[in-house]
Amino acid sequence: MSQNYPSPVDPAKLTADLIRCPSVTPEEGGALRLLQALLESAGFACTRVDRNGIANLYARWGAKAHARTFGFNGHTDVVPVGDEAAWTVGPFSAEEKDGMIWGRGATDMKSGVAAFAAAAVDFISETPPDGAVVLTITGDEEGDALDGTTALLDWMDDQGERMSVCLVGEPTCPDQMGEMMKIGRRGSMTVWYSFTGIQGHSAYPHRANNPLHAMARLMDRLSSHVLDEGTDHFDPSTLAVVTMDTGNPATNVIPSRCAATVNIRFNDTHSGDSLTDWLQQEANRITQETGIEVDMEIKVSGESFLTPPGPLSDLVAASVEAETGIKPVLSTSGGTSDARFVKDHCPVVEFGLVGKTMHQVDERVPVTQIYQLKSIYTRILSDYFK
Amino acid sequence: MSQNYPSPVDPAKLTADLIRCPSVTPEEGGALRLLQALLESAGFACTRVDRNGIANLYARWGAKAHARTFGFNGHTDVVPVGDEAAWTVGPFSAEEKDGMIWGRGATDMKSGVAAFAAAAVDFISETPPDGAVVLTITGDEEGDALDGTTALLDWMDDQGERMSVCLVGEPTCPDQMGEMMKIGRRGSMTVWYSFTGIQGHSAYPHRANNPLHAMARLMDRLSSHVLDEGTDHFDPSTLAVVTMDTGNPATNVIPSRCAATVNIRFNDTHSGDSLTDWLQQEANRITQETGIEVDMEIKVSGESFLTPPGPLSDLVAASVEAETGIKPVLSTSGGTSDARFVKDHCPVVEFGLVGKTMHQVDERVPVTQIYQLKSIYTRILSDYFK
Ligand SMILES: [Zn+2]
Ligand SMILES: [Zn+2]
Repeated sequence: MSQNYPSPVDPAKLTADLIRCPSVTPEEGGALRLLQALLESAGFACTRVDRNGIANLYARWGAKAHARTFGFNGHTDVVPVGDEAAWTVGPFSAEEKDGMIWGRGATDMKSGVAAFAAAAVDFISETPPDGAVVLTITGDEEGDALDGTTALLDWMDDQGERMSVCLVGEPTCPDQMGEMMKIGRRGSMTVWYSFTGIQGHSAYPHRANNPLHAMARLMDRLSSHVLDEGTDHFDPSTLAVVTMDTGNPATNVIPSRCAATVNIRFNDTHSGDSLTDWLQQEANRITQETGIEVDMEIKVSGESFLTPPGPLSDLVAASVEAETGIKPVLSTSGGTSDARFVKDHCPVVEFGLVGKTMHQVDERVPVTQIYQLKSIYTRILSDYFK
Repeated sequence: MSQNYPSPVDPAKLTADLIRCPSVTPEEGGALRLLQALLESAGFACTRVDRNGIANLYARWGAKAHARTFGFNGHTDVVPVGDEAAWTVGPFSAEEKDGMIWGRGATDMKSGVAAFAAAAVDFISETPPDGAVVLTITGDEEGDALDGTTALLDWMDDQGERMSVCLVGEPTCPDQMGEMMKIGRRGSMTVWYSFTGIQGHSAYPHRANNPLHAMARLMDRLSSHVLDEGTDHFDPSTLAVVTMDTGNPATNVIPSRCAATVNIRFNDTHSGDSLTDWLQQEANRITQETGIEVDMEIKVSGESFLTPPGPLSDLVAASVEAETGIKPVLSTSGGTSDARFVKDHCPVVEFGLVGKTMHQVDERVPVTQIYQLKSIYTRILSDYFK
C-alpha cells in the first residue's frame, strides 16, 4: 500500500492533497500523478492516456475486459479560481475550517475522485471480487472536453478495454446528500447566427434592408416556441438566446450586419439533427419574409441520452438509500457532463455529493460528506460484485 | 462693394473660397468671417451670434422687423472629410475639374450659401426693395445643432428681429436641378432601451429571466407595427431598430442586461408625445408578459412640420420652373434640417441644388448649377418684393 495512504485510505486527506495540486484546465498539476502512485501501489495497472497536451489516467484492477467490470469516471481539472482576493482561504490551500475542506475543486470534483479511488483501493484489497474495477480520470472536463474522457474511451476501444457499467462521480445533489442521482442528461447545442442585410440611412429605410428586424423576429419566434412538454424522465427542452450584438453607435445608420447566439438544452424528443432541421426551416422562413441572409454555425456539444431506470440505477439508488436514509430522485436535469461520452460505451449513471459551491469563490465540501460518499461507493462495489 | 467680389458677385468663386475654409463642425474655419466681410461691404448689418463656442452669423439689409422680410437660412459647417486618401483632390482645395468644383461642402451647402449670399447682395444693390432681407448662417447644422440656428432664432426673438418667410438653401434635388423642393420634414426621435432581467445558467433557464427574449419580442413588435399609411404630403412614418447589444461571450450564461436603440421618422399623424405614449404602452406590455424591466431614454430631435402649399411654396416653385423648366415636386422626405427650428418662427420651405455627393468622398458641384441656383434665388427675391 501507499506509504502516504495507509489502509483504509482516508478520502478527506486524499481530497485535500488533490486540491493542493493546481490543476486548472489544461494543467495536470500533479493530481493524476498522485492518483497513479496510490493506485499502482494498490495493484492497479495504470496508463497515462495523454492526447494533445491533455493528461488522462486509465487504471484497471482485475482482468482486461472482464464481463463484470465496474467503472468510475471523474475529472481532476478545475475551473479557474476567479477573483482570488475574494477567497476566504487560498484556493489551493485545502484548509480545513468549520468541518469543511476549502478550495477550488472541493466539490467539483476532487472529493468525488478521492472517494471512488479510496473506495476502489480498499474494496479490492479487502474483498477482491471476481471481476474488474476500472477508473477513468481525465484532466479535460471543464475545458473543451475534446481530449479528455473521449481520449480515454478511444484508447480503450483500441486496446479492447471495457467497462460493463460506469458511475460518474460528479456532484449531483442540489441541497442534501443523497437526494438526487442522474440517469441521463439533456443534449446541448449552440447556434451562432449572423444576419446580413443592406446598410442605409435611418431616414430612408426603404433603400436599406435592416438585419436587426429579421434578427428580432427570428429570436422572438425561437424563444417563444415550445419545443416539447417534457418526457417521462426529462424536463421540457429549453432554448435561450444568450447574446445579440450589433455594435452600431450611429442612430441615423441602419447597419448591414448583426449577430446572435442561441443555446438549446434538449431532451430525447429531439436530436442535434432534428433541431438543426427545424432551425434551418425557421431561418429560411425569415429569409423569405425579409430578404435578410441568415447564416448559422451550429455546434452540438452533446446529444441527449438516458440510461433507462434498471439494474444500474437500482443498485446505486439502493446503496445511496442504505447509507443516507434518502431515496434519490432519478433526474436528467442540469448541464452536460462526461456521461454524454460514456453512454456510448456502456450504461452510465451519475452520483456524487452536494454541488452547491461548485465553480464559486470559497468552494468547499463538508468532511462528513466525503466519508459518506466513500461509503456509498464502497457499498455500490460490494453490491455489484455480490 | 467687396474688393474681392466685384458686382455681380460670382457665386462659384464664393463657393470655392468657402470650401477653402476648413469649417468642419464646430470650427468656423474663416467661412463666416468671409461672408460677413462681403455682406457688410454690401450694406448688410451683421452680428455674430456665437453661443457655446459655436459661430453663427446674422445679417440684415433693410429695416428691422419689416413686414416684408425675406429670410435665407444655411450652414457653413461641414462633416469630416472621412478617408482623406480616398479623395481625388484635396478636400479643402476647391479645385475646378470637369466643370465641377470639388471639396467638402461643395453641395452641402457652401454652394447654397454662396448662391443666396450672392443673390441677396446683387439684388439689394440693383433693385433695393421696400422690405428687408435677412440671412441666418450657422456653424452648427451637421453637429448637435443645439447652438446653431436655434441660437440665431433665440437671439432674434430677444432683439425683436423677424423674418416674414424663410427659404433654407439645403440641397433638395435627388438627381436633376429643380425637380424637388421641401415644404416640411418628418420628425425624428431616438429611443435608447435597456432591459434588465435575472442572470443565470443556460441549463437552468427557469431560474433566470432572460432579457434578450423580451428585447427580441419588443423589437419585433415595434418594427412590424405599421405606424401609418402616409398622409397627403408625407410618406409613411418609419421605425428602424439601429442596434441591439449584449456583449455576452459565454454561451452557457443567460445575461441580466441588454440594450437596443430605435430611431423613428414620423409624419404629422404623430408627435413626439403621442409616440412616447405608444412606446410606453408597448414597454409596459412586455414587462407584464415577461417580468423584464424595460427602461427607455427618449430624445425627440425634431417634431414633424409642414408649411402647407400656399404663397411661399407657389413663389419658390414658380421661380424654379421659370429658371429650369421643371416644376418641382413638393416633398417632405429626407432627414432633418434646420427648417425644423425655423418653422416655429415663420413659414419655411427648402430649395437647393442636387445633393447626390453630399457627405461623401469627392463631394463636388457642377459650376453651372451654382449659377442656376443664384438665378433662382434672385428671381424668388424679385418676385417676393414685386
Ligand atoms: Zn465537474
Ligand atoms: Zn446640410
